[in-house]
Amino acid sequence: MRLTVSRKAHFNAAHRLYRKEWSMEKNNQVFGKCNNPNFHGHNYELIVSITGQVDPETGYVIDMKILADLIKVHIEDAFDHKNLNLDVPEFKDLIPTAEHIAVVIYEKLRTHLPEAMALQITLYETPKNFVTYAGDKY
Amino acid sequence: MRLTVSRKAHFNAAHRLYRKEWSMEKNNQVFGKCNNPNFHGHNYELIVSITGQVDPETGYVIDMKILADLIKVHIEDAFDHKNLNLDVPEFKDLIPTAEHIAVVIYEKLRTHLPEAMALQITLYETPKNFVTYAGDKY
Amino acid sequence: MRLTVSRKAHFNAAHRLYRKEWSMEKNNQVFGKCNNPNFHGHNYELIVSITGQVDPETGYVIDMKILADLIKVHIEDAFDHKNLNLDVPEFKDLIPTAEHIAVVIYEKLRTHLPEAMALQITLYETPKNFVTYAGDKY
Amino acid sequence: MRLTVSRKAHFNAAHRLYRKEWSMEKNNQVFGKCNNPNFHGHNYELIVSITGQVDPETGYVIDMKILADLIKVHIEDAFDHKNLNLDVPEFKDLIPTAEHIAVVIYEKLRTHLPEAMALQITLYETPKNFVTYAGDKY
Amino acid sequence: MRLTVSRKAHFNAAHRLYRKEWSMEKNNQVFGKCNNPNFHGHNYELIVSITGQVDPETGYVIDMKILADLIKVHIEDAFDHKNLNLDVPEFKDLIPTAEHIAVVIYEKLRTHLPEAMALQITLYETPKNFVTYAGDKY
Amino acid sequence: MRLTVSRKAHFNAAHRLYRKEWSMEKNNQVFGKCNNPNFHGHNYELIVSITGQVDPETGYVIDMKILADLIKVHIEDAFDHKNLNLDVPEFKDLIPTAEHIAVVIYEKLRTHLPEAMALQITLYETPKNFVTYAGDKY
Repeated sequence: MRLTVSRKAHFNAAHRLYRKEWSMEKNNQVFGKCNNPNFHGHNYELIVSITGQVDPETGYVIDMKILADLIKVHIEDAFDHKNLNLDVPEFKDLIPTAEHIAVVIYEKLRTHLPEAMALQITLYETPKNFVTYAGDKY
Repeated sequence: MRLTVSRKAHFNAAHRLYRKEWSMEKNNQVFGKCNNPNFHGHNYELIVSITGQVDPETGYVIDMKILADLIKVHIEDAFDHKNLNLDVPEFKDLIPTAEHIAVVIYEKLRTHLPEAMALQITLYETPKNFVTYAGDKY
Repeated sequence: MRLTVSRKAHFNAAHRLYRKEWSMEKNNQVFGKCNNPNFHGHNYELIVSITGQVDPETGYVIDMKILADLIKVHIEDAFDHKNLNLDVPEFKDLIPTAEHIAVVIYEKLRTHLPEAMALQITLYETPKNFVTYAGDKY
Repeated sequence: MRLTVSRKAHFNAAHRLYRKEWSMEKNNQVFGKCNNPNFHGHNYELIVSITGQVDPETGYVIDMKILADLIKVHIEDAFDHKNLNLDVPEFKDLIPTAEHIAVVIYEKLRTHLPEAMALQITLYETPKNFVTYAGDKY
Repeated sequence: MRLTVSRKAHFNAAHRLYRKEWSMEKNNQVFGKCNNPNFHGHNYELIVSITGQVDPETGYVIDMKILADLIKVHIEDAFDHKNLNLDVPEFKDLIPTAEHIAVVIYEKLRTHLPEAMALQITLYETPKNFVTYAGDKY
Repeated sequence: MRLTVSRKAHFNAAHRLYRKEWSMEKNNQVFGKCNNPNFHGHNYELIVSITGQVDPETGYVIDMKILADLIKVHIEDAFDHKNLNLDVPEFKDLIPTAEHIAVVIYEKLRTHLPEAMALQITLYETPKNFVTYAGDKY
């Protein structure tokens, strides 16, 4: 019996979208007001989905307390109330678009999960915009 | 033309997570406060999704009134305002985790749907925790 | 400058609605399926609203961390994953309707807030049913 | 790196479900109150999901402003505050069920997107009923 | 002990905003695309709030089943899947703006409630637009 | 006939909570992680509520297009994708707590509305925290 279990979480962060090697003009053209040099921010809503076999003893795919703790330690503590560009090392040379944030979250959590479990990340940047990433298998 | 149609429903129920053959200590260690012997409860939010061909005459995959009635008779009437452990026969020897409840709902509805229609169950136990089950094909 | 600040929280609990001194028949007539002797349950969504002057130094009516902690210690820890009838002393002789739960929450929090702050409790028993209580001044 | 990005939109419209060549009696039997000759209506909530490679320069699968504009011009301007049966040419001979509306939206947007991007449409007709369509590949 | 209890409901309807005695030009100027002669429509979300004393025997302000039935019989059955302009007598000479619909709902329910209970109607025409009406006392 | 009409809007912004004249230590003690010198951010959800008489000719308290435009020009264009501390003059010497932002929005909109209309601002800083301000009359 293979199921997917999902857990919601969230973090609030500032960011700016721009390429260092581009002119301000080109950055404005591509990223518009997301290129504000003083930053803007979002309440990011996160859904972490894990697919695996149900443990016949517990009836769990994964204990939700364990999953919630993994998300807290590796994602919320690292991203919440942070400036993604300045405070989070993964975005030193990576533009913090929603796409890239989802990939970074995927890779941070992937290493803490058994190989047999599939992982999918859904990240809402605003209530109207969200992205989904599920690694290679996607 | 193959589409998926989804219908939301809900039921309120009490449950307790524990294995009869385990000690209270072991049950507390695995299930934490979900092992309260006096039970706790949830507003379960259910999404039933059916994938099939669009009927060229009606423009429907399935008549939503028929689907809503199936859910009412087989799920809501059976689970709503019930104690899952004590009142629902399917959980007599099956721990009522969200995973198991989703599997039971899948199997109860599966028998009432044509073979050619695929079925997927999404069950929210809380606004932050949910599971998805789609049977063998998953 | 007088404002209202609100904080959401939630707890999951089992309950049963019935009057001990009434017959089962009369209880069924008045409380319907809410009188299931084996209990049923809900995800209660809570909004605690506090009205007061904005502190000119901090720009806060009340520090949200302090309010969140008050709610956690006095409400969530007391009600979450509990059977309201059996585990919560306030409901030993009080039927745990949404109305009564809101009044109990109000009285538990009221004693921990300065007199000058007004308090209002909104409690969702289901996504479709909720109650609001604001004490005497209402 | 292949991801899915999704954008929400909405439009309000009137419609009626019926087959011209059927009797009023048969239409009532199949479509029930959706066959009201004076029409009824909905707030349609739309999710457009696009799957593709992340552009290594911008970190975007697709610029959300471009996607939002495509949706505005081809869907919202065409459907919003319209009578789907009378004002929208695609439904002249096609019953405007949620299934058919999703297919029409898919086909209208598909022609404006690069071949390499996959497209999926989710359409909520009411908060409880929704459909998903992803073209041939589904 | 005085509390407010609220119950959500919904109905789907078509409508058109225009004054019969005005020219098409003036109606377009005032009502814009809401003046589509072929109608458009909405999923109206309704919250009915009743304020009163808690009954010391039941712990209820009003039995939610009774309130839900009142809403079903007098509002949902009268408005759901209807064209407000053509099918609902109250709007024969009254423009069905959200404001007017809320007032009509208030007046229809007011007559079925005890004098001692205060009534408030909240009506969402879209997820972004809503109105609140509470009669004279407001 | 006096009603309240409400319109939702939103903006994304960065901010930092701190008092210039306080030490970093004292700012951390009072504002915690909200005092990150590199800023963090939010998706602010705004509800603007206006209470007034219904115009007997239009059936409107206020034309929602006019209200939506007022919010766009005076609030969204001024705050969206901005750093509240650095880019918005009103917060040059005012800590941008949710309370203060609500008061600033109130005062910016108040001057553009007729005296006879009452105004109330509800501002969600996160899905769990929100504030309400209605000026002097509150």
